[in-house]
Amino acid sequence: MAQNGQKKMVEEITSMNEDFAKWYTDVVKKAELIDYSSVRGCMVIRPYGYAIWENIQKDLDARFKATGHENVYMPMFIPESLLQKEKDHVEGFAPEVAWVTHGGSEKLTERLCVRPTSETLFCDHYKNVIHSYRDLPKLYNQWCSVVRWEKTTRPFLRSVEFLWQEGHTMHETEEEAREETLQMLNIYADFCKESLAIPVLKGQKTKKEQFAGAEATYTIEAMMHDGVALQSGTSHYFGDGFARAFDITFTGRDNKLYYPHQTSWGVSTRLIGGIIMTHGDDNGLVLPPAIAPVQVVVIPIAQHKPGVLEKAGELYETLKAQGIRVKLDDTDNSPGWKFAEYEMKGVPLRLEIGPKDMEAGQCVLVRRDNREKITVRLEELSSAVPAALQAVHDGLYERALENRRNRTYTAHDFEEFTAIAKEHNGFIKAMWCGDEACEDKIKELTGVKSRCIPFEEEHISDRCVCCGKPATKMVYWGRQY
Amino acid sequence: MAQNGQKKMVEEITSMNEDFAKWYTDVVKKAELIDYSSVRGCMVIRPYGYAIWENIQKDLDARFKATGHENVYMPMFIPESLLQKEKDHVEGFAPEVAWVTHGGSEKLTERLCVRPTSETLFCDHYKNVIHSYRDLPKLYNQWCSVVRWEKTTRPFLRSVEFLWQEGHTMHETEEEAREETLQMLNIYADFCKESLAIPVLKGQKTKKEQFAGAEATYTIEAMMHDGVALQSGTSHYFGDGFARAFDITFTGRDNKLYYPHQTSWGVSTRLIGGIIMTHGDDNGLVLPPAIAPVQVVVIPIAQHKPGVLEKAGELYETLKAQGIRVKLDDTDNSPGWKFAEYEMKGVPLRLEIGPKDMEAGQCVLVRRDNREKITVRLEELSSAVPAALQAVHDGLYERALENRRNRTYTAHDFEEFTAIAKEHNGFIKAMWCGDEACEDKIKELTGVKSRCIPFEEEHISDRCVCCGKPATKMVYWGRQY
Repeated sequence: MAQNGQKKMVEEITSMNEDFAKWYTDVVKKAELIDYSSVRGCMVIRPYGYAIWENIQKDLDARFKATGHENVYMPMFIPESLLQKEKDHVEGFAPEVAWVTHGGSEKLTERLCVRPTSETLFCDHYKNVIHSYRDLPKLYNQWCSVVRWEKTTRPFLRSVEFLWQEGHTMHETEEEAREETLQMLNIYADFCKESLAIPVLKGQKTKKEQFAGAEATYTIEAMMHDGVALQSGTSHYFGDGFARAFDITFTGRDNKLYYPHQTSWGVSTRLIGGIIMTHGDDNGLVLPPAIAPVQVVVIPIAQHKPGVLEKAGELYETLKAQGIRVKLDDTDNSPGWKFAEYEMKGVPLRLEIGPKDMEAGQCVLVRRDNREKITVRLEELSSAVPAALQAVHDGLYERALENRRNRTYTAHDFEEFTAIAKEHNGFIKAMWCGDEACEDKIKELTGVKSRCIPFEEEHISDRCVCCGKPATKMVYWGRQY
Repeated sequence: MAQNGQKKMVEEITSMNEDFAKWYTDVVKKAELIDYSSVRGCMVIRPYGYAIWENIQKDLDARFKATGHENVYMPMFIPESLLQKEKDHVEGFAPEVAWVTHGGSEKLTERLCVRPTSETLFCDHYKNVIHSYRDLPKLYNQWCSVVRWEKTTRPFLRSVEFLWQEGHTMHETEEEAREETLQMLNIYADFCKESLAIPVLKGQKTKKEQFAGAEATYTIEAMMHDGVALQSGTSHYFGDGFARAFDITFTGRDNKLYYPHQTSWGVSTRLIGGIIMTHGDDNGLVLPPAIAPVQVVVIPIAQHKPGVLEKAGELYETLKAQGIRVKLDDTDNSPGWKFAEYEMKGVPLRLEIGPKDMEAGQCVLVRRDNREKITVRLEELSSAVPAALQAVHDGLYERALENRRNRTYTAHDFEEFTAIAKEHNGFIKAMWCGDEACEDKIKELTGVKSRCIPFEEEHISDRCVCCGKPATKMVYWGRQY
């Protein structure tokens, strides 16, 4: 029965290479991350999925607080008139919001939308609390859910409702606001590298791909296992556009009135989709240790033999006392079933302990990322486990970086671009003249969009890959989730 | 100017005894807990207010996890047909929900309500994941915001949108579910006592005051400074009513099909209103140390004198290293202004350090609750501060308990009941026959509602205070927020 269970489980996952999209939905379901709900495009985030989100929140929240940010909570509703205050913003979001028209049995005099993002709400509040340069900067963040009425949805990647954080800050000077915008982008990139083992490209979005109402949008772009890009976080510089629209002014050091300069930045549960598609394999989820709900699972071998369960319990306690998130599975299921189960769940490290190991005074660690077995003297367990977790992290990061290297192409002219786009998913590096018409044409003819103008520019040629006119900017292009 | 600031601040708070309601709104505004928003009944929770909520969350979440509960996230929308599945439940909530009727420019085929509570969503999910007794218990909780279309709103106490946690659990047996219901009520009561310094009555709600769809509702009732009750948390036992309505069944140990037994329980940002109205005074907020964003504020006296700022900084670092939430205010504002400011913000302990103190090798701690000054040798600071924080906590709890004692009355007959209800706010203990007609009559003639049938029963007489028929149950009655 346990063996059947194991077989069944492995059979039920589609292979990545066969059908990546189906593999993805298999993993989110079988690893018990989500359940579909009765509302189109809204998902139930189950305990194991939510525990990943909690670890992401805890880590990011500490980074935000260490850089002086404070959490707040804004209402979830935006009156229609408030949403309309900033012209570009409302144009971008109005087509995809959910409208509340009735409270109880009463029709509302003004429709309320469920926040798709909260710039307008923050500005409405900032107007009340910013009066002097002494009130600046305001460095606020909120953790909440937002709603966007997407037509096509996929768990974590694109859903009608999703969880996120949105930072909204106000500054005395443009320079300070621009610094904040980049600081937060760097925090996101560091977090992706250090905690999610995901390498990201940092860069600026083209005007066409900018956030509605922003003067500049910066992005971190990750590449998934299949070569498709995932926009994983964005940071926006708004100038004083919203401040003017909302009439937010402050008295400066020279006693004159000024508009403050604004930023916003966000990452969402989409990151969980990024983790799955960056690190997962045909056995299921593979979780980076920093955010794994369970970092080490202890599995007793031949647990009916005298002393095995006691020893397993002892090792569990040792690791737990060390602050490692460890689980002991002493159920009646077979070791084989357990191996498959925790591989599916992406637990970074498995610890096996059986009678032979005990005799030899050792145990076996098995890495989830490459299945490498490490035999460890029991007295060295306390240092071996953190080292092995670090090795898993490094291994995941390296493998993701290698995948990105292998799937990054360079195109010198349009013919080459088209051929690459037709044949491969991946990033295409190519020069761009800066004309939106070329961006549109590339999208139309190849289905590929601009990802970003990277901070680390390269010079590929002097000519735009599309129109052949002079070009100085290199752009990363690619299909996206 | 600083002195003016101080004067102005004190002037602007209404005295509690003059107008308690106005005092309350003054405090929530002046202590910078909330700002009003453009949406009726929705509030902006500002950094200081949100930091209190974060501390409440952290404390409660640890208590939930220690008792085996896991966090999840359910959609914020409930399709109308789903809300209607449990008859009593929909009757209770349908009149006060917000309805989403449009997504983008499209009219929805079925209206969605913004969750007022999530029993229906949890059941919809439980149906998919509960099949066998091995799948039980399910011990889930979620932190989120909910919406109830209240006519009259007050910050924290009753608002259209509020933050809360809602636990929803499923059990194999009635006994286990009933134990869970009481366990969570006890956790709430312990938390109120240990972390909020608020004494609460534990008891059962009468049938009339039960949650829509519940078989039994338990409550913790706190008494505010003005003698008015605040229902501060509830825990419900549902039996298998929802399970039957949603067709959730499991195969039992005997291989037969059963309906699981359900509970739910919740507390909300209303607790912050309870803290304000239990502990606050005419100088503003008074925060219990366990949830105060700042536990100790260090205020240098004559800070221009040599060494004062350095010494203040040193004490700040000492306390910080100890894990105490401490703030150093070395701004140019006068000490008097600072005293008023942190009294308004309810900081439990003020530490004053000036040249004379330094000479004497001491500093002065001032308790927020009773303004007691404690002179402390600097080398004893590390033990003196935690002791003083504990003393503030104990002092607050005792004072609240004393207030409840002073405002708890006993009524033997209806005449006496009416006279007390007319003259005083407070709890009235009186016998009740169990007939809802008597409850209705009392409410109608005196404006007072049943609070709870307390776990600690007393025998006051053999007769119902209203109809004079035989009665065995003592009920607490009182006006409520």
